[in-house]
Formats: sequence, C-alpha cells, structure tokens
Amino acid sequence: MSSRVYLDWNATTPLRPEAKAAMQAGWDLLGNPSSVHAEGRQARRLVEEARAAVAVAVGGLPRNVIFTSSGTEANGLALNPGVHTAGAPVQLLLVSSVEHVSVLAGGRFAPQAIGRIAVSPSGVVDLSDLRAQLAASPPALVSIMAANNETGALQPIRQAAEMVHAASGLLHVDAVQAFGKIPFNINALNVDLVTLSAHKIGGPKGVGALVFAEGLSGIEPLLRGGGQERGHRAGTENVAGIAGFGAAVKASTATLETDRVRLEELRNRLEAGLRQTPGAIIFSATAPRLPNTTLFTVPSLRAETAVIGFDLEGIAVSSGSACSSGRVQPSHVLKAMGLGPKLAQGAVRLSLGWSTTEADIDCALQAWRKLEGDLTKGGDETLLERF
Amino acid sequence: MSSRVYLDWNATTPLRPEAKAAMQAGWDLLGNPSSVHAEGRQARRLVEEARAAVAVAVGGLPRNVIFTSSGTEANGLALNPGVHTAGAPVQLLLVSSVEHVSVLAGGRFAPQAIGRIAVSPSGVVDLSDLRAQLAASPPALVSIMAANNETGALQPIRQAAEMVHAASGLLHVDAVQAFGKIPFNINALNVDLVTLSAHKIGGPKGVGALVFAEGLSGIEPLLRGGGQERGHRAGTENVAGIAGFGAAVKASTATLETDRVRLEELRNRLEAGLRQTPGAIIFSATAPRLPNTTLFTVPSLRAETAVIGFDLEGIAVSSGSACSSGRVQPSHVLKAMGLGPKLAQGAVRLSLGWSTTEADIDCALQAWRKLEGDLTKGGDETLLERF
Repeated sequence: MSSRVYLDWNATTPLRPEAKAAMQAGWDLLGNPSSVHAEGRQARRLVEEARAAVAVAVGGLPRNVIFTSSGTEANGLALNPGVHTAGAPVQLLLVSSVEHVSVLAGGRFAPQAIGRIAVSPSGVVDLSDLRAQLAASPPALVSIMAANNETGALQPIRQAAEMVHAASGLLHVDAVQAFGKIPFNINALNVDLVTLSAHKIGGPKGVGALVFAEGLSGIEPLLRGGGQERGHRAGTENVAGIAGFGAAVKASTATLETDRVRLEELRNRLEAGLRQTPGAIIFSATAPRLPNTTLFTVPSLRAETAVIGFDLEGIAVSSGSACSSGRVQPSHVLKAMGLGPKLAQGAVRLSLGWSTTEADIDCALQAWRKLEGDLTKGGDETLLERF
Repeated sequence: MSSRVYLDWNATTPLRPEAKAAMQAGWDLLGNPSSVHAEGRQARRLVEEARAAVAVAVGGLPRNVIFTSSGTEANGLALNPGVHTAGAPVQLLLVSSVEHVSVLAGGRFAPQAIGRIAVSPSGVVDLSDLRAQLAASPPALVSIMAANNETGALQPIRQAAEMVHAASGLLHVDAVQAFGKIPFNINALNVDLVTLSAHKIGGPKGVGALVFAEGLSGIEPLLRGGGQERGHRAGTENVAGIAGFGAAVKASTATLETDRVRLEELRNRLEAGLRQTPGAIIFSATAPRLPNTTLFTVPSLRAETAVIGFDLEGIAVSSGSACSSGRVQPSHVLKAMGLGPKLAQGAVRLSLGWSTTEADIDCALQAWRKLEGDLTKGGDETLLERF
C-alpha cells in the first residue's frame, strides 16, 4: 500500500520508529515487573522510565501516573465519585456534550448524577452554562476534553478549571486528542486528572494513562487483584507497550513545535482546496483548533459513501470518531453543536500527522475533485457497487 | 544475561518468535480496527484471525471471545452477577480459596455475596465442600482455576462443572496457568466462562481473553464507551498484542504434547535433586499437577532470601505468585492448604518452559547445593548484604 495516503491520524497514528525500538527492547526482557529477580527488576525499570517520561511531558509526578490499556479505561478509572482532594466529596458528574463516548458513559456515576454542559455552534464548551450548572449543583467532578476528536476544537480548559475549583469541584481532562499536538501541562492549566493514549501520538494501540495532580486521592480501581500501579490498577503490566508509549512521548514532545507549525500550514492548504467546492463547510472553523484536523462537508454529501470513495482512490479518511464508525446515527458532537442530522451525516474528517506531506494533501484534493461531482449529486451508488 | 537460567515461567514466559513476528506485522498496520478504510480493515482482519485461533484452541466460537488487557481484567469481567443462560440469575459467587487474587477480589459481587470453597491439604478443591455449599445456596456463579499458579495442582473442573450445573449454577474457570500446558476444552469440560492470558504461553504481557460458552449472556462491560468487542469491552484494540497472542496460541498448541512430556521429565529431575536435602517438601506432590511447576521448601528456609540467593547465583526463581511479590504475608494458597505461616514463608517456586534444558535444571540444583547450607542455618544475612 505504498501508494496510499493516510489521513486518519485522529483514529490512530503510525507507530514511531522510537516506539518500535523501545517495544523490541521491552519484549526481549524476560521478567514480570512484579518479580524480584534481575529479570523482573529490568522489566520494572523499563516501566518506570516510561512513567517518568509521561510525567515530565505533562508536568506531573511519576507516582501519579497510572498506566492503563486505553484512553477509554483511563476515562472509566477517572470518573468515579470517590475522587477528592482536601475538600468535600463530589456528588455529581458534569460532562461536556462533545466528549468521547467513553466519557459520556459516565464512569461509575449513577445516570441520574450525570449532567451535560452545552457547547456553542462552533463546538466550544459554553462557559456560562458551566458556571450556571456549577452554581446550581453540589461539588461536581467536571470532564472536558482538551480538543475534540472530530472537529479539533480546543476547549477553554484553564478558564473551566478556575470555575470548577471556585465551586469546590474537580476537573478531569480527556487530553487524548490534544496530547502531543499542542502543549499540555497540568500545572499551568490547573487540572486534577488527565487521560492520555499512546496510539494517538505514535505509540502502540492498547496503552493509555491516567495522570492525577499531587494531593488527589480516592481513585477506586476498575481492575482489582494484584498490587500493580501502586494499587490503582491490577494486572501484569504491558511492559513492551508501556515502553513504546514512553518513547513516543519523548519523540512527540521533541518535535511538537515544528510539527504544529508545519501541520497547520498543510491543514490550511487542504481547507483552501476544499473550500473551492461551492457550499463547502469546515466545522468549528471559527474556533481555536488542533493544527491537524479538518472536519468538512458539502450539501447532500453522505459521509459513509465519501469515505468509501476516498478509500477507492487510495486515501484513508473517516466519518468522525473511529469508536463510532459502523454506526449509522449521526455524530453526537455535531448534534450538540446544533447541526441537523442531514448536515451531520455528511461530515468527513481528514486528520494529518508528522509524516504527512504536501504531496499527500494534493493527492487528497485531487481525489476530492474527482469524487465531488458524484458524491454530491446522488451518483454515489456506483461507488458502493465497487466496494 | 546469557549465563542466566530463567525458572520463573509461571510469572511470565519469554515471547515466542512467532509472537514477535506477528506483533511486528501488527504494528506496521496503520489502521484502527474500527475504521472502514483499507488500513482499518487490515487491522480488523488481524484481530479476527487471532480471535479465531483462541476460539479453536479452547473449543469455543470466535464471537464468544472477548480480548482484554490481562487475565485480571478477564476475571473481573467474568465475575458479575448479570451472567446467565436460560435459567435463573446467579445470586452468589463461590470461589475456591486458592484462586488468584484477581478472582478473590470478587469482581462485581458484593462482599457478603461471596463464599469460599475449601481445598485439601494437597491444594485440590474439596468437592464435598462445593456440593454442600451449592446445596445450601441459591444458584451460584462458581470460580475454580484449572491449575494453581503456585503449586501447579490441577483442579477437578469436569466434576465441579457437573455439580455446579446440577445446582443451576454457572462455572467460571481461570485457566491462565493451565492453558498451553495441558489440554483445555470448554466443551469437554462443560465450562461457562474461561479466562486466558497471553504472557503465560509466550505471547506479550498486557493481553488476555475471556471466552464464554454459546448461549451465555449478561456479561456487563467493565470498560464502557465504543462498541468494540461486540459491545463487551470498549477501547481501541491492542492490535499488535492480540496478533502476538494469536500466534502464541497456535505455537503452544502445536507443541503442547511434546512439551508436556519433556517438561515433566525435567521437573521430576529437579524434584529428585531437591529431595536430597533432608526434610525437603514438595507442595501438592500427591495431587495431579502441571508438568512444569515445583513449589518446595525445607525447614527454616526463608523464601525471600532464597530467591535472592538463587538470583545472585544467576537463577531466576520466585516465592509464589508474582502478583503477590513484594508483600511479606505468606501465600493465601498455602494457608488454605492448612500450612502454618512458618512453612508457608519458606516456599520457593521453580517453573519451567519450552526452552528449559537439562543443563538449566542441573545449574539450578548446583546453585541449591551451594546455597542450602546458608539458607537453612540462619546464615542468610550475608546474602542480603550482597544484594
């Protein structure tokens, strides 16, 4: 598939060479990190080096990093009513209406103890709604993502943290999509819990982390048994995967600034091309966004057929979140932004990454030029036949 | 560490070459298995091939295999009060008293709804106790491991299944330690739920599976969000790890019979050597056991020091379960077998695997000959000083 162009980096990214090397080193170690012999201690060391790398990258302490098997697991671990600092326990969970499905699932809060925060038409959390809900509620755990996975819209984390703390609440941030693409520091943002995922930054699929602020406690394990991860998460550690995550963290942090500038230029080039189609809409275009994400549509486009059309032209793109693919219902994110189902069902996402080139963008635009007529004039049945 | 001898296979095994190759193939695939483009479909295919391999190995159906991040997670997923077949819901959890800590944790049953089944002095589940408890209880989910991780004692799964089903209950079997070492078929044994782990058979750490019998339902997800694993387990799949698990399953199944015979011979050679020490005890020696496991002690031995002594001689052994290492309290397994804390604190485990050689066994015995005097006469402080 050397002629393929991969523009679905928000679903998952290619494994970085640094991560591959670290994983190979990890899998050649014989030991279980819980074992006391030399082989066990070597495996332990690898896990702890990765833990330190993750901690440094977000400004946390290594002892407050819990490795998990995914961002989904980290979200489920974070969202439990037991978490607290010095203050009163939280009694309510408030989540933005554009969160990832694993956050919308609500962790271990009862359904009646979960509220939703509205977003603007550009997909940004409505801080006045947050303020109003905090004022009307007992202390709440609030969950707001750093950047939306479908639109790329950045959320006002720092301001949200101020409001939440003023109301004696705690703030959890799902930074899965933002981490490695924009600077993210839990101290600068004053965040209490952060979710990360390895496969969004060039680490392996199947590894995530929950990082919490010093002083926070009450994280009740989801997986119980052995004493791994300081009692926060039982089960033998994914040593090779964790080592790969650590290496990817270092690599993505090192090139974050240069990647950010370069990707934004490529993204702008892409969007300029897409806008040439009459009626083209770039979602969240007026909001601050991730440098790498474009969610667009044109009237009467059907996203599923568009994804297939691009695929047949050798371009991998998506119709919103990978976790929702295969489902027919329109994106809850676009619905929360006030868009009707017809427009929402046409949203196609192109997301870029460190190895994306200008040639890739031009290929994608060329494919779009070829496809747009059929895709917007109801002539897309031929594409489905070829699939 | 080429001169090291690794005899801690029950904690974790070396990654098989077949698993490495499969993982490398897996990590070079770009896609997220939930994505519909070609890259996504390729990743999906790899996951489904591994699922078929696991299903075939235990006699289940691919659609009834749920990949998890560990045996611990699979145990937590299995042990929930919602599971049922045609009959009444289970109201109670009965676990043998020698189960892994992740089973003893009881999953999602309330502490007051968990009972323990006794074991004999040789560490085998007491079927008369099981029968009595089933008779005195409402329908129960029963959890009995196929083989104990510390002693290697095999459990009477087939008979237990008959009793449990006659009492309208369901049987979960933690086969983590048995799978790949002895034949294990869920139909032949009539088992309802089975836990497996990749890193015990030459697959990577961080992958496990729960396999359930056709007709069973009500497995409430532990990790919630996306619709992965047919809605049983949310989160992007560990594609490379799952592929490695699949390859390890095939490899270990192919050589199971020859490995079993060879390992039993080596294990017998080891035990004959250990028995030369006056007062040596091999735990569960009178029970049917795994072919690869020896748990032994001699009077006044302290296991922690013995492990360090062996380690300094280049031999990796353990003091019981890796998940319990670092804890000072004696093994709950040996306690359940009626052994006093003094004897239990001296238990050292040597476990063998497919690359173990006669020379490895002789090295271990040579080391033991060198160490036994110091270790059993209170002269072990010098070892601790060198550590």
